[in-house]
Amino acid sequence: MIKPHPDLNVCTQELLDVAGYREQVPRVADMIINHCDIGECFTHIDNDPIPSKTSVIDILKQFRRIIFPGYFERHRLDPVNFRYTIGQATTALFDSLSVQISHAIRHDCLRYHKACEACEQTGHQAALEVLEQIPGLRKKLTADVQASFDNDPAAKSVDEVIFSYPGIFAIMVYRIAHELFIRNIPLLPRTMTEYAHSVTGIDIHPGAKIGERFVIDHGTGVVIGETTVIGDRVRIYQGVTLGALSLPPDAVEELRTQKRHPTIEDDVIVYSGTTILGGKTTIGARSTIGGNVWLTRSVEPDTTVFIETPKLIYKTLQEKAS
Amino acid sequence: MIKPHPDLNVCTQELLDVAGYREQVPRVADMIINHCDIGECFTHIDNDPIPSKTSVIDILKQFRRIIFPGYFERHRLDPVNFRYTIGQATTALFDSLSVQISHAIRHDCLRYHKACEACEQTGHQAALEVLEQIPGLRKKLTADVQASFDNDPAAKSVDEVIFSYPGIFAIMVYRIAHELFIRNIPLLPRTMTEYAHSVTGIDIHPGAKIGERFVIDHGTGVVIGETTVIGDRVRIYQGVTLGALSLPPDAVEELRTQKRHPTIEDDVIVYSGTTILGGKTTIGARSTIGGNVWLTRSVEPDTTVFIETPKLIYKTLQEKAS
Amino acid sequence: MIKPHPDLNVCTQELLDVAGYREQVPRVADMIINHCDIGECFTHIDNDPIPSKTSVIDILKQFRRIIFPGYFERHRLDPVNFRYTIGQATTALFDSLSVQISHAIRHDCLRYHKACEACEQTGHQAALEVLEQIPGLRKKLTADVQASFDNDPAAKSVDEVIFSYPGIFAIMVYRIAHELFIRNIPLLPRTMTEYAHSVTGIDIHPGAKIGERFVIDHGTGVVIGETTVIGDRVRIYQGVTLGALSLPPDAVEELRTQKRHPTIEDDVIVYSGTTILGGKTTIGARSTIGGNVWLTRSVEPDTTVFIETPKLIYKTLQEKAS
Repeated sequence: MIKPHPDLNVCTQELLDVAGYREQVPRVADMIINHCDIGECFTHIDNDPIPSKTSVIDILKQFRRIIFPGYFERHRLDPVNFRYTIGQATTALFDSLSVQISHAIRHDCLRYHKACEACEQTGHQAALEVLEQIPGLRKKLTADVQASFDNDPAAKSVDEVIFSYPGIFAIMVYRIAHELFIRNIPLLPRTMTEYAHSVTGIDIHPGAKIGERFVIDHGTGVVIGETTVIGDRVRIYQGVTLGALSLPPDAVEELRTQKRHPTIEDDVIVYSGTTILGGKTTIGARSTIGGNVWLTRSVEPDTTVFIETPKLIYKTLQEKAS
Repeated sequence: MIKPHPDLNVCTQELLDVAGYREQVPRVADMIINHCDIGECFTHIDNDPIPSKTSVIDILKQFRRIIFPGYFERHRLDPVNFRYTIGQATTALFDSLSVQISHAIRHDCLRYHKACEACEQTGHQAALEVLEQIPGLRKKLTADVQASFDNDPAAKSVDEVIFSYPGIFAIMVYRIAHELFIRNIPLLPRTMTEYAHSVTGIDIHPGAKIGERFVIDHGTGVVIGETTVIGDRVRIYQGVTLGALSLPPDAVEELRTQKRHPTIEDDVIVYSGTTILGGKTTIGARSTIGGNVWLTRSVEPDTTVFIETPKLIYKTLQEKAS
Repeated sequence: MIKPHPDLNVCTQELLDVAGYREQVPRVADMIINHCDIGECFTHIDNDPIPSKTSVIDILKQFRRIIFPGYFERHRLDPVNFRYTIGQATTALFDSLSVQISHAIRHDCLRYHKACEACEQTGHQAALEVLEQIPGLRKKLTADVQASFDNDPAAKSVDEVIFSYPGIFAIMVYRIAHELFIRNIPLLPRTMTEYAHSVTGIDIHPGAKIGERFVIDHGTGVVIGETTVIGDRVRIYQGVTLGALSLPPDAVEELRTQKRHPTIEDDVIVYSGTTILGGKTTIGARSTIGGNVWLTRSVEPDTTVFIETPKLIYKTLQEKAS
């Protein structure tokens, strides 16, 4: 009899040879397949395709190449090939985007048993509309990049900001996803912003409304909820939550359509670790909210808010020894 | 003489041509190789293969395709190809998993100089056992998805939750890794959960015990330590740490086998930024712990705990100017 | 007339067929191309190549294979192929690194309209210099790995630490990037550390100075600013910020060259969620800073600092009901 590794918790009376285990795989596969039939799991088995997460990520990369031409090319972009490269990239983006939007719409139609007579056409129309926003998106993102550079003494160049700043990546993805969100395209907007969340630690819901020259520095742990409204020239730091107040579970359904997250007016700064909650909470223009603040009510314009420094207790090693 | 870029700190007396530098690479390579011989580095040079991180990530993707059929396919899954696709996926998963478990076991055997007479057979047996858990895993994850949807007013559909919620991804990876952990498979469980940590910012040790309908919202910064015990229907938010109290370094060895992390009973909610520490700390059933709380002792069932709001200091611009 | 999906907000009077939308893409592409011409966007269109983010990520993986031989190979590394594998890897790394450094230098030269007479040679020289640091880097990283293992009761083996600990990955990338940073290579160092930030949630600026046996546990949310100085045997936990004090926007330019971030002396421990700010703030040797502390002034050596526990308010369900 073959004995197993002494530390392992596998239920073994007698080990079979390797082929003996492999022969049992079809039995296990049948169990897995049949278990699904009896409805204890979420499946997506039907005759229509579902959006592809991989394609959505590719779409974001295509947008980035077009929005910041030359920065994310594998080969150099020069005045000779510029028009061809961007023209080709735009066409490819249209093709991917129209397919994914069509899939998302059809998936949604089937889900709610509504008849969508023209998922494919509508998907193409929506994709074209979104592409038409690119010059506007680019202008906004150019201003966002400039604002990040202007406010950060550690930034060495605008190129470094475009290349590597997570805040810029998260804001870019949010601005793209928001264009889909306001057109009620299902599934794709959140898939986009959660991809950015994964890459940057910055979680911006595509439904939020965000003004110009927005800066997120460092960014890990930032949460910006669905119905947040943010003005122009706002800066927030790592670990800031703009969230909802907690409410009883039976209120979830009616909350889906209400403003649950705060309003941050123009020129506000919110330092790291601060939490601002509630749909009726407004931070007035030009206010500064210090770090680690927990706010659930409004602040007047032109106000500085910080916490009374918690009393710190100091002990020296000597004292501890005595 | 060629002069270098004026800003660069490279030690240059006179620049060689490009080939001149390349010719020196073998000298540097020898230095690197020989440095390793004298034992100042960790190497893994032996006749047996080590688990592959890339393969572990692929294994997680294979699990996901089987647990949520149709959601993460590149091509559509329909009633015609469903059985074949899942059957094929299950076989492929068995093959990858049995190889990686075998490598991990053999690697461990060699490390501790124990004789494992049957690493390969044991690996296959363990892989089969883990596959047999898939229907149970799927049932648990279905309940987790439903709980996330039920509690989040921003969720548009169950599909959106499966597609994009980081909490669901982290819980799925944890539940898979836990099945390996409780069978004492080395290396793989932590590699799996650290991959999820990387993707989501949610750090769940594979040794934690977690009940049904578990919800992690947003999730960035969540830490759940090795000996944490979590009941059913628990919800936690971004930045929550369920951790260990700090202890003197000479205690590390004996601590490796003790309960060092808290117990969270059924139906508890822990809001963002809260830290709960210690192996004897128990949060009683149905309690709610507010945001930014720091807790190192137990809380009775049916209790709400929050911090006395730190005094906020407000200054208007006018006051500051005066 | 075809009607669109009833929920969608796309501006539709009458839907065209699919080809009708695709025919409009060239018009949109022209708009996108011409918009760029009028200068409202950042572009990188010139005759010289820019560093490639994908290549920078590959370079980090090549470094890792050389620094920890055998751990991140797809095939096994044994005494027979060891010398060839490392020799080949070192040559390949030199080739990639010299190209990327050359691109970064030339990009920078063009940016500031300085004449760099020898970007390519300097790039090769710098790459060789950095490669010569590998034995030293490996020695430091070996000590970092050992320190992580020694301090973590949840670590099962040194291999697990190398394989999966995000702190080790972030520290490795920082130590590599720092070698480029101190040689004033533009763009690449920050691209490297922001990649590690993306993977781990740990944001270490390549300019920071960090001693031996450095431990970052869990790590999500850690921020270490550009001019931070950290001694030997320091340990920090998730959510720790070593940052700059906020200053008026018109001070940004002069701040670019000043010490803005704290000094952490030997043997200091900083627990989770703590923020330490300011270029004149020094935490003296052997001090311990508790969790959630907010510090903007120096601490003497051998001191323990923690916050006076905020008063917690407990309510039982009964009390709430009454």
